[in-house]
Amino acid sequence: MIYADNAATTKLDADAFELMKEYLLNDYGNASQPYEFGQKCKTALRAARETIAKCIGADPEEIYFTSCGTESDNWAIKMGSNLTDQIVTSVIEHHAILNSCKSMEDVGKTVKYLPVDSTGVVSPSDLDRMLDDSKTLVSVMFANNEIGTIEPVKKLVDVTHNKRGIFHTDAVQAVGHVPIDVHELGVDMLSASGHKFNAPKGIGFLYIKKGLELRPFIDGGAQEKGRRAGTENIASIVAMACALEKNCVQMGDNEKHLRNLENIVITILQNAGLDFIRNGSGCRIPGNINLSFADAEGEMLLHRLDLKKICISTGSACDSVNTQISHVIDAIGVPDKYAEGTIRISLGKNNTESEAERIANALIDVLTNR
Amino acid sequence: MIYADNAATTKLDADAFELMKEYLLNDYGNASQPYEFGQKCKTALRAARETIAKCIGADPEEIYFTSCGTESDNWAIKMGSNLTDQIVTSVIEHHAILNSCKSMEDVGKTVKYLPVDSTGVVSPSDLDRMLDDSKTLVSVMFANNEIGTIEPVKKLVDVTHNKRGIFHTDAVQAVGHVPIDVHELGVDMLSASGHKFNAPKGIGFLYIKKGLELRPFIDGGAQEKGRRAGTENIASIVAMACALEKNCVQMGDNEKHLRNLENIVITILQNAGLDFIRNGSGCRIPGNINLSFADAEGEMLLHRLDLKKICISTGSACDSVNTQISHVIDAIGVPDKYAEGTIRISLGKNNTESEAERIANALIDVLTNR
Repeated sequence: MIYADNAATTKLDADAFELMKEYLLNDYGNASQPYEFGQKCKTALRAARETIAKCIGADPEEIYFTSCGTESDNWAIKMGSNLTDQIVTSVIEHHAILNSCKSMEDVGKTVKYLPVDSTGVVSPSDLDRMLDDSKTLVSVMFANNEIGTIEPVKKLVDVTHNKRGIFHTDAVQAVGHVPIDVHELGVDMLSASGHKFNAPKGIGFLYIKKGLELRPFIDGGAQEKGRRAGTENIASIVAMACALEKNCVQMGDNEKHLRNLENIVITILQNAGLDFIRNGSGCRIPGNINLSFADAEGEMLLHRLDLKKICISTGSACDSVNTQISHVIDAIGVPDKYAEGTIRISLGKNNTESEAERIANALIDVLTNR
Repeated sequence: MIYADNAATTKLDADAFELMKEYLLNDYGNASQPYEFGQKCKTALRAARETIAKCIGADPEEIYFTSCGTESDNWAIKMGSNLTDQIVTSVIEHHAILNSCKSMEDVGKTVKYLPVDSTGVVSPSDLDRMLDDSKTLVSVMFANNEIGTIEPVKKLVDVTHNKRGIFHTDAVQAVGHVPIDVHELGVDMLSASGHKFNAPKGIGFLYIKKGLELRPFIDGGAQEKGRRAGTENIASIVAMACALEKNCVQMGDNEKHLRNLENIVITILQNAGLDFIRNGSGCRIPGNINLSFADAEGEMLLHRLDLKKICISTGSACDSVNTQISHVIDAIGVPDKYAEGTIRISLGKNNTESEAERIANALIDVLTNR
């Protein structure tokens, strides 16, 4: 099998698993208990928080563990909107953001949607024009999950702060894959999801800038300084820290490797004379190859590749129930002739040159033998 | 080490771990993707849902996976209160319920609190008197996490339904430990947490009765029929189903074993002539031994036992920051002479008779050599 759907989920890092195993089988204490067996876990929790903070340029006390990126997004939008009069987000956000915004609209909040250009980029001047005297929560993703476009976060933050707003970024696709320094960027909140960077599923975090009085989304016990209740998921937290640190250390090499694989795929497809568009901007997440083929059907391509033991996607896994053209492909205005023929190949650090070649050749085979 | 804090968290079941490992290392696909590698996970997800449903007398489509019992409680209270005019809960609920209720009070909801008797039992006639013409969400726990008291859930449900209310129960301490049939009980919602029944931390579920129009608490992708977004945590879900099924199969034997261990501890303490009260009602969770010793300090007892490599608790792990007398001990009116000397020994299926004896003898040693 060739797994090329790393934007949907990634293979758990082997070292992360070994650590996880230790906390699943042996040091299984409750980190909130004062006896030594619990405190061992608390120490591990502290170390994991420090590692993760260092990976994104945060202070450890700014990292709050959650169950996933979606929970982090819900927390940022639903509690962040309590601090503001309105929400501004982009039309190409993940559904974790869009549907959280919709819930806030349902309870009377104003939500405004930023357009994107044909490469999926949000314009800082569009944001500037949209912001008025109202206190605003702005949420724009760091990198798009379908087309990989990296947004001009720093500029968007500056515009937001000039108008006294709060800025959140859904960085689920970016953390562990591109350099991020939250203090340098100035973001007020940032969401991340472990399983997108070789940590297990079911763990994530929300960065909350020191001083931001964000209410808890999940109330209960005193965990996470009273801001996120629920028994600490130590095994997954420790594994997440390990996987993130490894990815950050290898980031330069991984990017180089992935850009090479991208080129292999694109070059083979171009040389075959196929009629396709590569979606997204020139500044995109390493490994993302979003392609729209003329007069093709993405779903058919996915299933034909599946028969060849190659896993790719038509778009977001989270929207798999919906097989229509995605809101992202719609927003960037992919022409009708191509839009339905959209697939996402998302390569990861484990993919090889030979796999990249086989993916491209399999696509050529499927597209020329219809 | 003797681990006797199973109400805080339990040791992961070995078979559950083996299954978990498989989905962490090999079948790591995204269950929402249509290719075969994802569908294998979807099949496992379906089987896990069926197993869990069977264990509590539910239909599979009534089980919604969450990240923990606390999330389930937040969902039930915060979204359940949208369907009703007021909330009625008990004074001895877990903080996941009490603090969720407090958040609802902060946004203008009325919350009323049911008292308990000196054994921690909520009276159905008290509930009946408290319910008026308002549509009410009633939330009373199945079994208390500190003193183990099992509430008369069936009677409370009947009273609630007679007044057209909705009934939720936080069954985090009960699921996998005492027989539960949600359809027979008639509850509208029930919360459970995996790590309380030998599943991993970071996974739980909410039972939602068919037809109850509960809005999602975590918005986003289409997972869990659009009611709980976030990539499915397959490894933990599969492990949870395995652990719960095993506990349910062994439930009778486990209870017999634990009642025997309880008797060993209590008999040794009584024979030593110690001055103590055993808290809770006669109908309690197997393995729970909540004791208040005259003129003692729970925190001192915990630390002295910790030095003897015995893990017990003063109360809820989730309230470990707060070292005062717990709200539960306060509510049942333990006399001042005893209240501060409260500890919770919570035995699990892995504890042995010898361990029970050693715990009791260690307590005698600590209390008589002050």
